Amino acid sequence: MSDDVNAHSGYVIGVDFGTLSGRAVVVRVADGAELGTAVHEYEHGVIEDRLPGSGVKLGPSWALQSPEDWRAVLRNAVPKAVAAAGVPAAEVIGIGTDFTACTVLPALADGTPLCEVDGHADRPHAWPKLWKHHAAQPQADRVNAVAEELGEAWLPLYGGKISSEWEFAKALQVLQEDPDMYARADRWIEAADWIIWQLTGSESRNLCTAGYKGIHTEAGYPSREYLTALDPGFADFLAKLEHPLSPLGGLAGQLTAEAAAWTGLPEGIAVAVGNVDAHVTAAAANAVHTGQMVAIMGTSTCHIMPADQLAEVPGMCGVVRDGIVDGLWGYEAGQSGVGDIFGWFVDTSVPAAYEAEADRRGISVHDYLVELAEKQQVGQHGLVALDWHNGNRSVLVDHDLSAVVVGQTLATRPEDTYRALIEATAFGTRRIVEAFETSGVAVEEFIAAGGLLKNRFLMQVYADVLRRPLSVIGSEQGPALGSAIHAAVAAGAYADVPAAAAVMGRRTEAVYVPDDARADGYDRLYAEYRELHDHFAGVAHGGSGVLHRLRAIRNEAVR
Amino acid sequence: MSDDVNAHSGYVIGVDFGTLSGRAVVVRVADGAELGTAVHEYEHGVIEDRLPGSGVKLGPSWALQSPEDWRAVLRNAVPKAVAAAGVPAAEVIGIGTDFTACTVLPALADGTPLCEVDGHADRPHAWPKLWKHHAAQPQADRVNAVAEELGEAWLPLYGGKISSEWEFAKALQVLQEDPDMYARADRWIEAADWIIWQLTGSESRNLCTAGYKGIHTEAGYPSREYLTALDPGFADFLAKLEHPLSPLGGLAGQLTAEAAAWTGLPEGIAVAVGNVDAHVTAAAANAVHTGQMVAIMGTSTCHIMPADQLAEVPGMCGVVRDGIVDGLWGYEAGQSGVGDIFGWFVDTSVPAAYEAEADRRGISVHDYLVELAEKQQVGQHGLVALDWHNGNRSVLVDHDLSAVVVGQTLATRPEDTYRALIEATAFGTRRIVEAFETSGVAVEEFIAAGGLLKNRFLMQVYADVLRRPLSVIGSEQGPALGSAIHAAVAAGAYADVPAAAAVMGRRTEAVYVPDDARADGYDRLYAEYRELHDHFAGVAHGGSGVLHRLRAIRNEAVR
Repeated sequence: MSDDVNAHSGYVIGVDFGTLSGRAVVVRVADGAELGTAVHEYEHGVIEDRLPGSGVKLGPSWALQSPEDWRAVLRNAVPKAVAAAGVPAAEVIGIGTDFTACTVLPALADGTPLCEVDGHADRPHAWPKLWKHHAAQPQADRVNAVAEELGEAWLPLYGGKISSEWEFAKALQVLQEDPDMYARADRWIEAADWIIWQLTGSESRNLCTAGYKGIHTEAGYPSREYLTALDPGFADFLAKLEHPLSPLGGLAGQLTAEAAAWTGLPEGIAVAVGNVDAHVTAAAANAVHTGQMVAIMGTSTCHIMPADQLAEVPGMCGVVRDGIVDGLWGYEAGQSGVGDIFGWFVDTSVPAAYEAEADRRGISVHDYLVELAEKQQVGQHGLVALDWHNGNRSVLVDHDLSAVVVGQTLATRPEDTYRALIEATAFGTRRIVEAFETSGVAVEEFIAAGGLLKNRFLMQVYADVLRRPLSVIGSEQGPALGSAIHAAVAAGAYADVPAAAAVMGRRTEAVYVPDDARADGYDRLYAEYRELHDHFAGVAHGGSGVLHRLRAIRNEAVR
Repeated sequence: MSDDVNAHSGYVIGVDFGTLSGRAVVVRVADGAELGTAVHEYEHGVIEDRLPGSGVKLGPSWALQSPEDWRAVLRNAVPKAVAAAGVPAAEVIGIGTDFTACTVLPALADGTPLCEVDGHADRPHAWPKLWKHHAAQPQADRVNAVAEELGEAWLPLYGGKISSEWEFAKALQVLQEDPDMYARADRWIEAADWIIWQLTGSESRNLCTAGYKGIHTEAGYPSREYLTALDPGFADFLAKLEHPLSPLGGLAGQLTAEAAAWTGLPEGIAVAVGNVDAHVTAAAANAVHTGQMVAIMGTSTCHIMPADQLAEVPGMCGVVRDGIVDGLWGYEAGQSGVGDIFGWFVDTSVPAAYEAEADRRGISVHDYLVELAEKQQVGQHGLVALDWHNGNRSVLVDHDLSAVVVGQTLATRPEDTYRALIEATAFGTRRIVEAFETSGVAVEEFIAAGGLLKNRFLMQVYADVLRRPLSVIGSEQGPALGSAIHAAVAAGAYADVPAAAAVMGRRTEAVYVPDDARADGYDRLYAEYRELHDHFAGVAHGGSGVLHRLRAIRNEAVR
C-alpha cells in the first residue's frame, strides 16, 4: 500500500433507508471496498391501510412509516454488517446515512416523533408521511396556485410545480385536517435529518432535502406573506423548519452513547449530515463533477447532475446550489414510471403460455420477453409508445398524462409491445438529456445506476437511443456506498466529497457502446416519439389535450 | 292457416358455403320456419401450406380451397338437414346457395375446375383461390395504379381502391406466375356461380359478385385498353368472364339428375342464381328496403344497405345496381377487424390469472372480461382506441394503418382495454354510418346479424354509441335462411325477394335501445376517436402519416 492509502485507515458505515427496508454496508476508507452488508426489513413496511396498534383506518392514497422501524435498522443491520465484514468495530471511524425523500414527520422540540407521544398513536397525522403519501394533492394544488398568483420567484427552479410529495403540501395537510397535531409539532423534519438526530442527540438539517423538498433556495424559504396566503394558520410554519443548514459530507455530530449501544459502534465517531438516496449515489459512482449525469434507474428513474452553471431546464424536479456536491448547482430530473411500466405489463398483459414457458425454462417472464425481443431488428415491431403510464415528470411535469401505444396489429406479440415500452423509456431519457443540452447545460457523461442495470438488453437500447457510451456504477448498493463515502468525509479522512469519491467511488466507462446502424434506426423512431410527445402533451404545451380530456372524463365517471 | 299461406306450400333448401364448412337448412316456404339444419366441415379446410396430394408448397399469404369439399356439402349436409327437418324430400321445391366472395377458380369450358384436370393437381394456380388469399397484392397495386393513371370511371364506386382479394388481381396473378394455367382456363368464375353450375349443369353468373368483386358496373366490365395496359397478356381476360348476368333470386336452372342424386332432392326443382353470404343476409333479416343497413358482425364486419339513390360514399367496398335486391343500389362497406381484434387481445394480452378464473367459473375468457367490463361507467377506464389492428376498410380504405391505444396507466386492467377495443369498433361503425349520412344516403335502421350478436354487452355499446335502437336478425343462420328465401323466389312461390323476405325473413326491432346518459358519455369519447382518427390517418387524408412511416420502418427492418 502507498503512503497515501495508509493515511486513510479504518472503516466507515453507510446506511441506506429505503421504502421497505434499510441496508448497512461496511466500507474500507482506503479504497471503498465493500466488506460486509446486512439488510433489515421494516416490521410495518409501508402503512397504507390502518395504523399499527390502534387500527385506525387511513384514507385513500395515504402512506406512513414507523420511526421505530428505522431505529431497528440501526440496532440490527449495522452490527450484522460489521460482523459480516469481519472487521473490528473499534476501527470504524464514521457513519453516514441516506433516506427516501420527502419522507417527513412532526416531532417535539426534543425530536420525539408525535406518534410516540402518549395519546397520539391513534392520530394518523402524528405519523411520518412516506415519500409516496399522495393524499396531500389538494394542498399541493393550493401551494402551486398561490405561488403562481403571487409570482413566487422560486417556482421556476422546481420545474414550475411543487409536488404533493414534498414538505409544504404534507404539512399543510396536517394543519387543515388535524390542527391539534399541527400545533403540537414543534418541528417538521425530514426523516433524513431525524435519523441523524437519533445518532447524534441533536438536531441538524441538511441542505439537500431543504433545497429539493423544502423549497429552500438561495433566497431562503418562502415568505411569510406567501404562507399566510396559503392559509392564515400556516403563517408561522417556518418556525417548525428553521435551523442552520449543513453541507453534504459535513459533520453533523458525534455518535451518542445510546446510539453506540444500538449499533455496536464506538461512541463519539463522526456522524455525517443527512442525505438523500439518489443524491449520494453520485458519489458512489465517482460522478460528482460538472456534466456527469447519474441515472438511478428502478421502478422510476431519477437523474442527478452537478453543473457549474444555473439554467432553467424545463421539467426539473429542482436545481439546488450545493445540492449534490459543494460548489456546483445540483440538478434533479425524473421519469415517473420506468421499471413500474415493465412490471405492469408483465402483470397485466402477458398470456399464460408465456408464463408457462418462462416457468419451464426457470427464468422470469421479464427475461423471457427480453430474450424474444432482443432478436428483433430496430423498428421491426412497427410500434412506438409514450412512456407516460405514471404521468410525465420531466420535461412536461404533468401527472395527468397517460400512455399511448401506436402501431399494434393482429400480428403484434407481447415481446413486441414489451420492447416498445423499453424503447419508450429510453426515448423519455433522451428527451431529458436534450432538454439539458438545449438549455445550455451540457451532459458530458451518462452514468447508469440502480436495479435496471441487470437488464443488459435495456442498457444497450439506452446506449443506442442516446447514441452515447454508457458508464455503469461499480456497486450494487450505490446509496449505501455513497453514504459511507460521506461518512469518510465527515470523519476527516478526505478533504471533501469529490476527493473521497475519487478513491472510494467507482464506475466503469463505456460499458455499453452505441451501434451506429441501430442508433440510426432509433433516430427515426425517436422522431416519431417526439411528434407523438408534442401531440399528446397538454394544451398548455401546445398539444391536443386529449389525455387531459380523457382524464377528466374518467374522473367524472368514478366520482 | 290463411289462404295466402296455403298458396306457399312446400319447403326450400338454403346452403351457406363458409370458410371452413358448409351449412344446409330446410325452411318452410309458408313462414320461413327453420325446420332442420346440418353442417359439413370441409376435409381440406383452408389450404395454406401445401397442396393436397402432391404436397407442393405454397407461398406466403396463399389460401386455396378444394371444389370437391364444396360438392361434399351437397352430398352430406343437404340430406342430413332434410332428415333432421323430418319433411318429405319430395315437397322441396327449390334450393338456393350463398358463398364467400371473392372465392374464384379457373375452369374448363364445361365447368371442370383446372385442379381436377389430369396433370394439373400439382399446379397451385389451378386451384380455387379463397377470399382471403392475399398473395396478389402486387397485382392489386397495379390494378389500382393503372386505373388511377387512366382515370377509370369505375374506381370511385369501389371506394377508390380494388382489393387484392378480388377477381382481377387474383386472375392477373395467375397470368403473371403461371401463364400456362391462365391460358388453359376457359372460364374464371366465382365459386358462388360454379356451385350453381354443379347443380344445374349449365353456367350462370350472378349480378352481385360480378358487381362487387368483378368490377362490373352499369357501363360493363373495364375496357380492353385498360386490361392491355395492365398487362398485354391480360387483354382478352373478359373472354373468361363474359356471360349474361342473372338477377338475385332469379332462376338459374333446374336441379340435374346427378345433383338430385347427391342431395336426395327431386330432380328438376328450381335452383336460384348464386349469391354472397353477406348479401343474402339482408333478405333473412327482412331488411331489403332503402336505408336498412344490415351489419354482419363477426371476425370482421360487413355492412350491406340498399338505397334508392346513387352517391359516392367514402370508403365503400362497392355500390352495385340491383346488387342486394332488384331496383335499388346496393352499398357495401366494411370494418376489416372486429371480432378478430377481441380474439387477438384474448390470445396475446390477458394474464394467466384471468384464464384461471374463467376456467374455474366455466366461462370463456371473453365472457369473463365482459363481466368485468360491463360494471364500469362510460369513460371510467380513461381510454380510447383506434380499431385498426387489421387496417381500415371503410372509410379510409387503407390496410397499412394500424391500431392506437391512448390513456393507459399503471392502473389499467385487461378488462379496461378490452372494453375500449369493443367501443373502438362501435366508433368505427358510427364513422361509417356518418359517412353514409353526410353523403346524403340516409341510414334509417341498423340491423345486427352475425356471430357477435351473442355478446349482449357489445350490442348495447353499439346502441349507445350509435344512439339509435338496434334491430336484430331473427335467425342464427342468416345466410342459409337468406339463400332459402332466394330459392323460394326462384321457385316462383313469391313474386320477388322483398315479398318473400317479408314472410320468411325476420328481425326484431329495438332489441337494444340507447341510454341517453351513456350515449352522452360516448359522444365525448367519440369526439376523441374522431380527432385521433383524423390525426392518425395517412397524409393523403390530412393525417400525420405516422402509421405509414412506422409501417415503412417495419417493412425495411424485416426485409
